Amino acid sequence: MKSYQVMTKEELMTLREELRKAYEDAKGLGLKLDMSRGKPAADQLDLSMEMMETFNRNTVPRSEDGTDCRNYGALDGVIEAKRLMAAMIGCQPEQTVVCGNASLNVMYDLLARAELFGILGETPWSKLPKVTFLCPVPGYDRHFRMTEAMGIDMINIPMNEDGPDMDLVEKLVSEDETVKGIWCVPRFSNPGGIVYSDEVVRRMAALKPAARDFRIFWDNAYAIHDLYEEDQQQILEILSECEKAGNPDMVYEIASTSKVTFPGAGISVFAASPANLEEFKQRMGVQTISYDKINMLRHVGFLKDLDTLKAHMRKQADLIRPKFEAVEDILEQELGGLEIGTWTKPRGGYFISFQAMNGCAKEIVARCKEAGVILTGAGAAYPYGLDPDDSNIRIAPTYPTLEEMKQATRIFSLCVKLVSVEKMLENK
Amino acid sequence: MKSYQVMTKEELMTLREELRKAYEDAKGLGLKLDMSRGKPAADQLDLSMEMMETFNRNTVPRSEDGTDCRNYGALDGVIEAKRLMAAMIGCQPEQTVVCGNASLNVMYDLLARAELFGILGETPWSKLPKVTFLCPVPGYDRHFRMTEAMGIDMINIPMNEDGPDMDLVEKLVSEDETVKGIWCVPRFSNPGGIVYSDEVVRRMAALKPAARDFRIFWDNAYAIHDLYEEDQQQILEILSECEKAGNPDMVYEIASTSKVTFPGAGISVFAASPANLEEFKQRMGVQTISYDKINMLRHVGFLKDLDTLKAHMRKQADLIRPKFEAVEDILEQELGGLEIGTWTKPRGGYFISFQAMNGCAKEIVARCKEAGVILTGAGAAYPYGLDPDDSNIRIAPTYPTLEEMKQATRIFSLCVKLVSVEKMLENK
Repeated sequence: MKSYQVMTKEELMTLREELRKAYEDAKGLGLKLDMSRGKPAADQLDLSMEMMETFNRNTVPRSEDGTDCRNYGALDGVIEAKRLMAAMIGCQPEQTVVCGNASLNVMYDLLARAELFGILGETPWSKLPKVTFLCPVPGYDRHFRMTEAMGIDMINIPMNEDGPDMDLVEKLVSEDETVKGIWCVPRFSNPGGIVYSDEVVRRMAALKPAARDFRIFWDNAYAIHDLYEEDQQQILEILSECEKAGNPDMVYEIASTSKVTFPGAGISVFAASPANLEEFKQRMGVQTISYDKINMLRHVGFLKDLDTLKAHMRKQADLIRPKFEAVEDILEQELGGLEIGTWTKPRGGYFISFQAMNGCAKEIVARCKEAGVILTGAGAAYPYGLDPDDSNIRIAPTYPTLEEMKQATRIFSLCVKLVSVEKMLENK
Repeated sequence: MKSYQVMTKEELMTLREELRKAYEDAKGLGLKLDMSRGKPAADQLDLSMEMMETFNRNTVPRSEDGTDCRNYGALDGVIEAKRLMAAMIGCQPEQTVVCGNASLNVMYDLLARAELFGILGETPWSKLPKVTFLCPVPGYDRHFRMTEAMGIDMINIPMNEDGPDMDLVEKLVSEDETVKGIWCVPRFSNPGGIVYSDEVVRRMAALKPAARDFRIFWDNAYAIHDLYEEDQQQILEILSECEKAGNPDMVYEIASTSKVTFPGAGISVFAASPANLEEFKQRMGVQTISYDKINMLRHVGFLKDLDTLKAHMRKQADLIRPKFEAVEDILEQELGGLEIGTWTKPRGGYFISFQAMNGCAKEIVARCKEAGVILTGAGAAYPYGLDPDDSNIRIAPTYPTLEEMKQATRIFSLCVKLVSVEKMLENK
């Protein structure tokens, strides 16, 4: 297709008319489609229904050490759940605490405890004049929202193909002692789908922070969430890399089964060095008596071990891969060669990240909404909701049906074209 | 039996020898008994096993509004769970948010958010030079531990037969603007088993705090945990009392099913005024995506409504009442008339509270331990673990078997006698 970039003003004006007509037609369809939500579809949830029958009224749920999991106790989780979650993220069971239904809540607690009590004897962040976090962008909106809620300043870090811009990260972390953390989704980043290279992980583990209580928040949300079986790119295990680099306490790792079994009814894991774990357990002991161990056993009974877990994730992939590919195909058909946008073709995770022309994202999202297609708010993937280029749009292909996804992607492509042409004409 | 208080020195010395021999014999038994833990016994947990079969692999857990409870969503809980939990504590469903497996964690979050963000626009507590909580004593150790962890000062408030000393509470709350909260377990208080009278509840609801962000932390942990069917003493519903008194926002109410179904695998509830609820939801939305709605539906399916819930609690009572009565009987047999201790005969809840002679509690607990009987640490029911009289001991009768409870109570009585006699001889 002919690039919009080489079109004359007249060509663009003709095109604009055609697109406006098409857009009015699309609005007339009265669609109601949602590409905004990074949540599994019902058929994915159906894959885990066996978990509803882990126990019956005659089976006392006991952990392998004999603990009656219906009662208080086992503050840091049952051993078999530690083994399962450690296998999922590639660390050792003794490096983990198994928590409740939301890794987001674990991350929140980590931030809140750092604010209230400080980390390993350092000053509580709430007593400091300024605390800063580095935020690779585009990133996960909920990370940024909780960081903002804590009153922490956020600095955007550009993402390269293989992870965050480490030159900038190294400079800021080593020079600025107000920098206390960085948000990382190291495998299939949200929304870019980027997998951190070994070099990036090694440089991350070897950071020389000015602040002793600097922590890498390693949200390994998509550790096993591959879309394809071939050419799976693994990441280096961060706890051992930090240890090797002489920074054993520098990382907090978090993950969950939210996109493995049931979002909101899964289990989560915190993994860290002995000193961090010790502090974590001591503080969680003030906060709760124990997490839901029956649900831990349900997950262990169903997901069993890494092989079973991976087999389960292949079934998940079989359901969502066609949706990702449909979006990619339609974007290629509709927008390929037009030079008005680029998009990721992730090998895993939950999102496709679309880069529109600068200054177009908000308008595209608004036009889509008017035509009945809901997208994540433009800017959501940036701290404070501010995309400096107003160009990034997150597409979440999993929740709608395949047919809905196709229809929604066509409307989206139409809106991208229309808004891009209008933008170009503004400047002619 | 002859009161120890009227014995001569010689009589006491003879008695001491007898008791010491008996104590050595007891130690020889090599017992291992635990009266320290406020947790249900296995037979109580067995009562809820039906919940293991709420769903099977073919039943999608849906709330009555059609929400697929396997997925994200319904941040503040499903309506039927709100209805159930509201019935349990006597408020309206729309006054509630249903949370995760631990009411303790809800209370912790309330404190932490007040510290970090402030309450309804007031200064965050972490920015204030001093914050004070009123702590009716003896009280729940975990309330005090989390309050201490937050760096909040605690003031002991004596408990009367019908609740906290309200003269003192009114004075401190109205005069001291650093007083930001009071801990209340209004029905079957932990450990005293006290039920707040209507007058106490009304005076509590009518407090005129110097601090606008003063909150009553109303931990209604034993709302339906009666041991006896006859003469059940109800408490006034605090939310409506506060509203009537013109203080709608002054109370946070919290409860859970921990001692109804499975501790650690239950559901919890937060109840408050519209303004408090709004703030609560907004802040929980930063912290999590949703709590475990499948488990909410399990509880609704099993406990259904107030009648079913109460019938279930009667079964619980039938299992634990004999243990309470055994402890009370043995204490009466062994210590009645000796004038060396008093104890509560609670009509509900989970504890018996024993008052030894001043200065004896720690030593009694130590002697019990030496003889293989574990009690809650002396002082645990007081802020900072400091019982100013060193006289209170908490007995938790539910977890051991009836026979174990009897044996443990005999050893306990023996230790009370021995330590009391030794104490009296010190002063002769």
